Amino acid sequence: MSERPRLGLDIGGTKTHGILLDAAGRVLAERVLPTERGAEGVIRSALAVTDACLDLAGIGRGDLDSVGIGVPGQVDHLTGTVRTAVNLNISHLALGERLGLALGVPVAVDNDVKAAALAAAARLAASDLTYINVGTGVASATLADGRLVRGQGNLAGEIGHIALDPDGERCACGQRGCLEVLVGGAGIAERLAALAPRVSLPSLFDAAAAGSPDAMTEATRISAGIATAVQLVVLTQGSSRVVLGGGVVHAARGLVDEVRRILTARAASSEFLTSLNLADRVIVLPSDYPVAAIGAALVGRATADAVT
Amino acid sequence: MSERPRLGLDIGGTKTHGILLDAAGRVLAERVLPTERGAEGVIRSALAVTDACLDLAGIGRGDLDSVGIGVPGQVDHLTGTVRTAVNLNISHLALGERLGLALGVPVAVDNDVKAAALAAAARLAASDLTYINVGTGVASATLADGRLVRGQGNLAGEIGHIALDPDGERCACGQRGCLEVLVGGAGIAERLAALAPRVSLPSLFDAAAAGSPDAMTEATRISAGIATAVQLVVLTQGSSRVVLGGGVVHAARGLVDEVRRILTARAASSEFLTSLNLADRVIVLPSDYPVAAIGAALVGRATADAVT
Repeated sequence: MSERPRLGLDIGGTKTHGILLDAAGRVLAERVLPTERGAEGVIRSALAVTDACLDLAGIGRGDLDSVGIGVPGQVDHLTGTVRTAVNLNISHLALGERLGLALGVPVAVDNDVKAAALAAAARLAASDLTYINVGTGVASATLADGRLVRGQGNLAGEIGHIALDPDGERCACGQRGCLEVLVGGAGIAERLAALAPRVSLPSLFDAAAAGSPDAMTEATRISAGIATAVQLVVLTQGSSRVVLGGGVVHAARGLVDEVRRILTARAASSEFLTSLNLADRVIVLPSDYPVAAIGAALVGRATADAVT
Repeated sequence: MSERPRLGLDIGGTKTHGILLDAAGRVLAERVLPTERGAEGVIRSALAVTDACLDLAGIGRGDLDSVGIGVPGQVDHLTGTVRTAVNLNISHLALGERLGLALGVPVAVDNDVKAAALAAAARLAASDLTYINVGTGVASATLADGRLVRGQGNLAGEIGHIALDPDGERCACGQRGCLEVLVGGAGIAERLAALAPRVSLPSLFDAAAAGSPDAMTEATRISAGIATAVQLVVLTQGSSRVVLGGGVVHAARGLVDEVRRILTARAASSEFLTSLNLADRVIVLPSDYPVAAIGAALVGRATADAVT
């Protein structure tokens, strides 16, 4: 294993988060810059964040061991190709190859939630867990025996588009009542904006606790939806730990406690659910832990180690 | 690998199905006898079916290579111990050890749906699939890269107790609106018995096609529930093939066509679902193919091969 530093890039729809780690996993530099959308924009953003991190650390491109990238969308991790990333406005991009040529180091690319699951597993020293990202999109990634569960064409983890309520609101994917409509950031923002008086996501659970009926309805809807997601991944895959992450989870103060409370309440009428201890399986990482960027660095490392 | 015959036993709540296979997987003998419930009853039944198969083939216990058993319930496959099998009235039984001592050959035990998934994979020459059993109970088993996905404590596959409808009917597990209530044999039998005129499961889809409103409601409820199960396992685990099996699937003429039709109809409004071709992933094995008993024989073989 190389002693040289490795870079992780979490390329999101609005910003690109870069982190430079030494061989022991310590943070040498970290930078966040806006993401330019479209194929060329994403490449420019990735290079800008890379160079900004290298400048901070006082080293050059040639000093890197590897670069790993997490991208929200469908990725062919074997070739480093982004097949579809709606939020980045990319339909096809050989991102790994393009950046590898520009930087002169191996560049690996994977889905951002799968990358985050790698970082969560490393932090928790766990080889089995499911990471559920509740942000603008909703998706999961599972590690079993230390390996990412990918499924055919990397499809595993698209839990956001399980339709829980056939009469529910229309999802961007065309179905109705998808988990993502219920608990994803876009659906929540739309519903909160329609409330009078308006409530922000950070204060939603406080407003609910203070007795606002609208806030209570919405708080319960989000928490129950996430509780169902936890139940769904545990019953389907047998996940021993479920790590909740993403913007919604970290923005909504009180959300995770309410998810745990709902899971416990559901178990009250079910010996079977009680035996599963679902509430105890739920884990949240500190909100300032850059799970996706660190995960991206691990994506790069895994590939570089396999090659060298 | 031994050239001697191997026996598979599918021990169900009402009957025990034994099958004797030669080393090439050809059926040498097959017998079905009623299952006596309770720990001692199950052991007596297993021995009776074993001896009946051996008699048919004209060989003795000492000629066996291995015995594998599939049991509906929670099994510790590493020790061959049944932890809970409600339908067999067993709360704890060292089934593998007890039968191994009685027969003088290695006996392996696994969950019956996991065993069936092994047989389906062997028959389809597939290393990645999900088998969904829709019988009295509802559960799934997934093979990824040729290995069973077990999850913590073999919990993976308990999809029957995902609560799809919080306002639905009460499930035996204590929750409301579980998938098992919607599509499991017991829930269906209860609802069909309440119809006037009564409709049997085999003729339900014919009655629906003939215009009976009650039959149409029930036929749609079952088909839509199974379609959701297919969608759920594919989106969560990325299953490339979904094999439907179990008593309900084989009893209800027309059910699988309707499941495929619903999957296709749901995709009509969703480019994302269209891209998944869910209807094409659905596979049904011939109803006379003894998937669980053959799977049990494979459970035994895998263990015997690992030992020898």
